[in-house]
Amino acid sequence: MSTSSPGVRTSPEMPIPERMKAWVLGGPDELFQTTKPVPMPGRAEVLVRIDAVAICATDLEIIHYGSPAKFQGGLPFHKNFTPGHEYMGTVAALGPGVDEYRIGERVTVEIHAGCGQCKRCRQGMYTACLNYGQNYGDVDKGHRANGFTTDGGFCEYQVNNINTLVRVPDSMTDEEATLVVTAGTSMYGLTELGGLVAGESVVVIGPGPIGLLAAGVAKALGATPVVLVGTRDGRLEIGRKLGADRVVNVKNEDAVAVVKELTRGLGADYVIECAGTQDAINMATAMVNRGGKICLAAFPHDPVTVDLPQIVRNNVYLYGIRGEGRSATHRAMAFMAERRFDARLVHTHSFHLDDLPEALRHARDRVDDAIKVVVKTRGAAAQRLAAE
Amino acid sequence: MSTSSPGVRTSPEMPIPERMKAWVLGGPDELFQTTKPVPMPGRAEVLVRIDAVAICATDLEIIHYGSPAKFQGGLPFHKNFTPGHEYMGTVAALGPGVDEYRIGERVTVEIHAGCGQCKRCRQGMYTACLNYGQNYGDVDKGHRANGFTTDGGFCEYQVNNINTLVRVPDSMTDEEATLVVTAGTSMYGLTELGGLVAGESVVVIGPGPIGLLAAGVAKALGATPVVLVGTRDGRLEIGRKLGADRVVNVKNEDAVAVVKELTRGLGADYVIECAGTQDAINMATAMVNRGGKICLAAFPHDPVTVDLPQIVRNNVYLYGIRGEGRSATHRAMAFMAERRFDARLVHTHSFHLDDLPEALRHARDRVDDAIKVVVKTRGAAAQRLAAE
Amino acid sequence: MSTSSPGVRTSPEMPIPERMKAWVLGGPDELFQTTKPVPMPGRAEVLVRIDAVAICATDLEIIHYGSPAKFQGGLPFHKNFTPGHEYMGTVAALGPGVDEYRIGERVTVEIHAGCGQCKRCRQGMYTACLNYGQNYGDVDKGHRANGFTTDGGFCEYQVNNINTLVRVPDSMTDEEATLVVTAGTSMYGLTELGGLVAGESVVVIGPGPIGLLAAGVAKALGATPVVLVGTRDGRLEIGRKLGADRVVNVKNEDAVAVVKELTRGLGADYVIECAGTQDAINMATAMVNRGGKICLAAFPHDPVTVDLPQIVRNNVYLYGIRGEGRSATHRAMAFMAERRFDARLVHTHSFHLDDLPEALRHARDRVDDAIKVVVKTRGAAAQRLAAE
Amino acid sequence: MSTSSPGVRTSPEMPIPERMKAWVLGGPDELFQTTKPVPMPGRAEVLVRIDAVAICATDLEIIHYGSPAKFQGGLPFHKNFTPGHEYMGTVAALGPGVDEYRIGERVTVEIHAGCGQCKRCRQGMYTACLNYGQNYGDVDKGHRANGFTTDGGFCEYQVNNINTLVRVPDSMTDEEATLVVTAGTSMYGLTELGGLVAGESVVVIGPGPIGLLAAGVAKALGATPVVLVGTRDGRLEIGRKLGADRVVNVKNEDAVAVVKELTRGLGADYVIECAGTQDAINMATAMVNRGGKICLAAFPHDPVTVDLPQIVRNNVYLYGIRGEGRSATHRAMAFMAERRFDARLVHTHSFHLDDLPEALRHARDRVDDAIKVVVKTRGAAAQRLAAE
Repeated sequence: MSTSSPGVRTSPEMPIPERMKAWVLGGPDELFQTTKPVPMPGRAEVLVRIDAVAICATDLEIIHYGSPAKFQGGLPFHKNFTPGHEYMGTVAALGPGVDEYRIGERVTVEIHAGCGQCKRCRQGMYTACLNYGQNYGDVDKGHRANGFTTDGGFCEYQVNNINTLVRVPDSMTDEEATLVVTAGTSMYGLTELGGLVAGESVVVIGPGPIGLLAAGVAKALGATPVVLVGTRDGRLEIGRKLGADRVVNVKNEDAVAVVKELTRGLGADYVIECAGTQDAINMATAMVNRGGKICLAAFPHDPVTVDLPQIVRNNVYLYGIRGEGRSATHRAMAFMAERRFDARLVHTHSFHLDDLPEALRHARDRVDDAIKVVVKTRGAAAQRLAAE
Repeated sequence: MSTSSPGVRTSPEMPIPERMKAWVLGGPDELFQTTKPVPMPGRAEVLVRIDAVAICATDLEIIHYGSPAKFQGGLPFHKNFTPGHEYMGTVAALGPGVDEYRIGERVTVEIHAGCGQCKRCRQGMYTACLNYGQNYGDVDKGHRANGFTTDGGFCEYQVNNINTLVRVPDSMTDEEATLVVTAGTSMYGLTELGGLVAGESVVVIGPGPIGLLAAGVAKALGATPVVLVGTRDGRLEIGRKLGADRVVNVKNEDAVAVVKELTRGLGADYVIECAGTQDAINMATAMVNRGGKICLAAFPHDPVTVDLPQIVRNNVYLYGIRGEGRSATHRAMAFMAERRFDARLVHTHSFHLDDLPEALRHARDRVDDAIKVVVKTRGAAAQRLAAE
Repeated sequence: MSTSSPGVRTSPEMPIPERMKAWVLGGPDELFQTTKPVPMPGRAEVLVRIDAVAICATDLEIIHYGSPAKFQGGLPFHKNFTPGHEYMGTVAALGPGVDEYRIGERVTVEIHAGCGQCKRCRQGMYTACLNYGQNYGDVDKGHRANGFTTDGGFCEYQVNNINTLVRVPDSMTDEEATLVVTAGTSMYGLTELGGLVAGESVVVIGPGPIGLLAAGVAKALGATPVVLVGTRDGRLEIGRKLGADRVVNVKNEDAVAVVKELTRGLGADYVIECAGTQDAINMATAMVNRGGKICLAAFPHDPVTVDLPQIVRNNVYLYGIRGEGRSATHRAMAFMAERRFDARLVHTHSFHLDDLPEALRHARDRVDDAIKVVVKTRGAAAQRLAAE
Repeated sequence: MSTSSPGVRTSPEMPIPERMKAWVLGGPDELFQTTKPVPMPGRAEVLVRIDAVAICATDLEIIHYGSPAKFQGGLPFHKNFTPGHEYMGTVAALGPGVDEYRIGERVTVEIHAGCGQCKRCRQGMYTACLNYGQNYGDVDKGHRANGFTTDGGFCEYQVNNINTLVRVPDSMTDEEATLVVTAGTSMYGLTELGGLVAGESVVVIGPGPIGLLAAGVAKALGATPVVLVGTRDGRLEIGRKLGADRVVNVKNEDAVAVVKELTRGLGADYVIECAGTQDAINMATAMVNRGGKICLAAFPHDPVTVDLPQIVRNNVYLYGIRGEGRSATHRAMAFMAERRFDARLVHTHSFHLDDLPEALRHARDRVDDAIKVVVKTRGAAAQRLAAE
């Protein structure tokens, strides 16, 4: 970064190089390490030195298929794009006029910075920004979804709108801080369902990272019972530690029957569907009660057959959510900072940035039962840590 | 009705007989005219002398399949049940303690009287009452859905909870008043979508009675543009008179393309799906914009294949609605009383109660392009009137 | 109670006497112990054997001034009225059709059972029932506010609508269970402010029982910082244990300045005013931020001078709350059952029902720094217990 | 404006001068006509050629006291400031990246462009932007409130964020279009009260421009009855034409008694207080029903004595509103474009921009019963028009 940019403030305690290490896309499933110029923060932006970045299933999709911008904005499968979106780090430079943050503060990030000028952004629905992906060339509306439509976090520095920052308390490790945005997605889902879940029944289907943290968030918000449904006992056991009152392995039990029994035959008030399969979606419609709500936090690649008659007859509402809107990440951090649930339980592996391919392999192939794999930019390369 | 019931008040100006004419179910598709005792209003109830009752597609389903109670509460296809739920009339007797209404007032009715003691009723979601259908024998929770789980309006008198009554202004005919509950269903849908649709784009798919009145309600609430999508030009033309800014006959035009063009390529803010087919539902998901909302006010008999990936990627919410909740009928009446839309346009035929089978035939077979067929309890039998 | 009442179910394991001990009002500040018939539960009601009842400041007001029904419904200062509304106990008999509860279950109660038929009840705002107090003679609308407009809990048995019941887990003592309705009032306030307070700043003014538990509830919901403002260090210290991050004794510090400093000069997002004085109300308006919200959970006897210009200029909303609406008591119980905050800290004294006058004296005169004084119906008379 | 600014687009059909006429503040109550450079639109901004601007009571306050920025941000009574905020005009140039508008389109404006980066803006509450007035020098957060904290509309050109623009249909005159922001303020108030006022009782106190248009907006939304309370029969008569079902001149009638009578003794569901006096505020608290809501759309200069006990006992909520938030101006325009109420009735006088002092005198002294006085930038100077 050229530190002489007008209005940008830096600190001698955090010198910023001109160029940085960055992983970039080649063709499908190709990822190369190279260098890029360190980007420069604009108005309402800061430069974040990336200290750790977690791997999300979506990263694997982007490496395989290309960024969503390709599908939605007509971009080619663009080489030189840097994926990675679940990162945290240290504020390294301030864009013009920024006084909300100081250099040296630890922050973790949300993905979406809305354009701020479309109808959805004006409603506070910035993850559904109508200018999604419009940040290239002539149509720059200022939207950023780092790691999706703008360069992301598999590198050493990235620019973030201050709307996407959440402060990290000293007591929280870098690794745990990378999980805030995942918990924020779970919190966003529960927010859109109404948020007042204390004393209500919540079922989470699919104990991936979002599902596991959804169990934690639901319990922190006072939901009871919290039921977690999955197929692998190891994952379910982690869910129990995160706050699930009851776990159901569908290989052994009928989840709908269990939920009905736990709810005096009525069914669940809320279902958070995080598996993204046809079976899971119809399990959700079968177990939600009259007037209940379903959050779809995952989705299949293709259209699926859904029991819509059941949904309408029972006055059920479905919320397809995307990302971590409504400032939900801030609420997730508030609970994590007080350790209301122990997000660290979903972090299983750590690698150095230089070993990103190996980290990705662990995430993709679930090597050693990997759940969340975190990549760190410092320390010895190839260092590999067990979960805390 | 025994006028000597304790606490029930009657008036000499409205003498009430002991028995009344009533149509009752036999086996599937069998309907007989017989007599029944006039029922007696309890606490918080009035007796309504039925003056007119409109035929709904659901009535035809009930006559064919039996009442929903059969499916949901385990009742047999019960003979002697009186269907009919879109009725209006005159208050004829007051239950104990009722001073909210006076004998002689004209009223139209909502279908659902919730139990008042379940979680949903306590939230104001009485159409999703968790004690739906629980009003028989030992498990009487006070729920009533006249014409669905309790005797309905194809007769001369019926008992209604005062929660289900809406006053009819003098300027409104009996026929028009029977349409308030249909407009109330449309209003309920728009309420659940947020209600603030002024200046927003609303597409209604399916120009049946609910869809046509949805176009009227949306326009009354200030929506613009209001687009109505259907397959028959006659219906669409009525929709235009009710308030649609643009009509689309899918036989001639691509509805999704039209909506995109009208909305600068973004898609519609709200879609009210009233057709209940797989194609219509997927048309809705294809035309709604990012962050938009879809109301499902109709449904197919069987599960359908839905583009859920699109719903989740676009942060779309789906609202399966049932009935006319959230006091929406009162809001619908407020607009109808000021003729903000002319609901009379959907009323096409009138018959005498004695000619109910002929009335039902017109509704079922759409004889003479019938939309809403109204049955009246007074005047010459077999009198048949053109729409106003 | 006459156990032969039609439809009422009792159990041989909980025999119910014909008459019971009851304290009743005489003239102002006169309270006598007498006996009354045990009341009989009606439809949707149960009979509760009262095991413990906490004393609220409102009880003292009612004993001094008469019940609110006097002011609002025109009743005379009615002798023979039994006050007391923060009670818990054991289900002793079931009204006709009740299957939601079983005899022998421990329950604690909400105060308000709305009529279920007015506009407010239909919206779920049953504490603002438009038929408040209408439960006498000809105008019985079914509204009950036990201890306010219908007989309360300073006796051995009382009838409660099932809408007012919350189950008590085995792990919770009788004394703690009496505090649920107080926590429910705090939860109602936070609910009406929007409920999503995680990570937001909440100031509570006035460390009485509602204020102290508001600090606990706000912290349980994730608010940060939670600031408690008062005048007595002892109370503030209890608040800190309940969850306040910062306490301010206004005798030593400027609360507005402290809040501004904690919030980067912006002021608090939410203020819960529980002191009911002019100074406290204007402290609230001075410390809330632009677009912030104030809950008025207490009130002075007389009109006060308020800085309305500040409220309007800053787009501030004020919520005058009454009671424990929106099923907030259920949410409060969900948190208390998991000991998210230790409500027992506000319980300081216990007495036997026979010693009610002494219990009231402790509450009124804050003898031994009394906060919540609980009266129990069983155990040795005049037994007096320190707080747990 | 320098048309060679990078990224700014202009059109030869709308040539833009370097300098323009502008009225500026001197000392208190001093206003001078001078010239200023035409400002240049930045990112997400357009340049508006001002065609008409209405005078608001706040303009008179600003000319007398200085801009609100003076009070809130510590600015001196700043000379050279151009007030005026209710303007409309024609898009004359586009800032970099703007494709939402075309040069030549007629637009009317909202006042507030929030910073887009504070908590309130992110919630959609941009009129309560926490960076209000922060648009000078080092702390430029991008907030603009034209005519309040940034230069306004008593001149020939002004820069507006595209978030503040509303398109004007061809059928609407320039004069009527200046009234949209006033109607938007009324709509914002009704929005914050919940928006679903169809069939509910709404009382408006104070028939100034906001109050008169509040009556129109409330009626358009279906409220019934709409009651307008004031002191001058002429104004009340205009209110009746705008949609009030009942008008009350408090010189002749007891407004509280009238409202109680119209509402079966219960009081009004909603009160919009637009008078800003202690009497009016307490009239509002006395006439609102249990669980009802009051919007404070005006305010006195000093603290006032308010019946807070009544507010709390009746579970009443008060909404102090500022400006025209939540995109309410768009909804107001939707109704005005269809002439659901005739806003032109509040426009009484027109002057040329050169005659601004005379226009201000008419507004301040209510010369000829002036309500809304509009200043136009074109046509013969000193031309004075009667209301349409």
